[in-house]
Amino acid sequence: MAIESYVVVHNIAKKHNVGTLARSATAFGVSEIIIVGRRDFNAFGSHGSTSHLRFRHFHSLTDANLYLKKDCDICGVEITDGAVSVTEHPFKKSTAFLLGNEGTGLSAKECEMCDFFVYIPQYGGGTASLNVTVAASIVLHHFGVWAGFSERIRDGNKFVVAEKPLKQVSRKYCTETDDSIIEERKSRRENASNGFFDEGKNGASSANLLDSVFTEE
Amino acid sequence: MAIESYVVVHNIAKKHNVGTLARSATAFGVSEIIIVGRRDFNAFGSHGSTSHLRFRHFHSLTDANLYLKKDCDICGVEITDGAVSVTEHPFKKSTAFLLGNEGTGLSAKECEMCDFFVYIPQYGGGTASLNVTVAASIVLHHFGVWAGFSERIRDGNKFVVAEKPLKQVSRKYCTETDDSIIEERKSRRENASNGFFDEGKNGASSANLLDSVFTEE
Repeated sequence: MAIESYVVVHNIAKKHNVGTLARSATAFGVSEIIIVGRRDFNAFGSHGSTSHLRFRHFHSLTDANLYLKKDCDICGVEITDGAVSVTEHPFKKSTAFLLGNEGTGLSAKECEMCDFFVYIPQYGGGTASLNVTVAASIVLHHFGVWAGFSERIRDGNKFVVAEKPLKQVSRKYCTETDDSIIEERKSRRENASNGFFDEGKNGASSANLLDSVFTEE
Repeated sequence: MAIESYVVVHNIAKKHNVGTLARSATAFGVSEIIIVGRRDFNAFGSHGSTSHLRFRHFHSLTDANLYLKKDCDICGVEITDGAVSVTEHPFKKSTAFLLGNEGTGLSAKECEMCDFFVYIPQYGGGTASLNVTVAASIVLHHFGVWAGFSERIRDGNKFVVAEKPLKQVSRKYCTETDDSIIEERKSRRENASNGFFDEGKNGASSANLLDSVFTEE
């Protein structure tokens, strides 16, 4: 089975900039960005990358966990006691990377769902931690090296950008409408009884996929 | 001689945010940030890191080059034909990293002063390049691994931040005053005749050092 990587972003602050994260994610071959909790952020800084990424949304960490645990290890990016330096490439298979909140890091509940942790060694005494997008980018870069992803072709001094997918919706923000909340609640009630998260058996899953999260001006 | 790293930032846009870059630089043991050209940027995003970094300013690339060439290789971070993947750690000694402008990359003049180039492999087709701070952070991280810098001690889930240096000036921006320009021109005239850039022989250099570039609120 092909190796894939995922990024899990949990309860990001309102209108937090995930654009630079999306740009790094697509550069390093990430398959999906999984958004858990609120999803009203903007895409400033993505330089168009968001149209090349799949975004999937779950209301709870538990639901995201059920979706990911089927095929993935979940790796916390956090300086915990047992964390391994990312330079050691402690990966085994497809991996979802769970990013800590800038201020407080990963919560106890988030740590519980992780199979292992990686951290990025620091050498200077000027900062307690890295910017979360910088940290994520370094980890995703190492995962791509470990996985042996094929390097993208280049044209002069730039990597070649693929054609944008045709489907484009003109929405600047990934907003959560009343309709979508009602639909989501309905679907969660159904999930409880019909094994929703096993839909992978019947082919590619479209569960919780956000068709188009952003467009950019 | 101890291995050191430097970051060279040339003609950054006005009030451009170098804070996140400074935060990564101090995390990865960078000795100095060399600012060439205008220096009226702000430090938003540095999380206090700027007080732990040395900043040095030169008006021209030629002056910065003279200062650096004494002890350093100069490495361009750019996807050129001869660029080596940063994962191969193509380093030999202390190195100054020259970062390209976000839009246009390194200019011909900037490329000329580089001893070699590194690039960061990309795998996905969604972006032509990385955010410049993300790219710099990945390169500085690899240089630290190659140099074998000592890992900073930790306390719980954070690296321990050193005491702030005592000298603090309450200025938000690194502004260029008329006085400083006059002083700089005077000093450059003197340099032409007295071997200014050899002052290292007489001990630590303070040439062009900015005592305190930022303070943060």
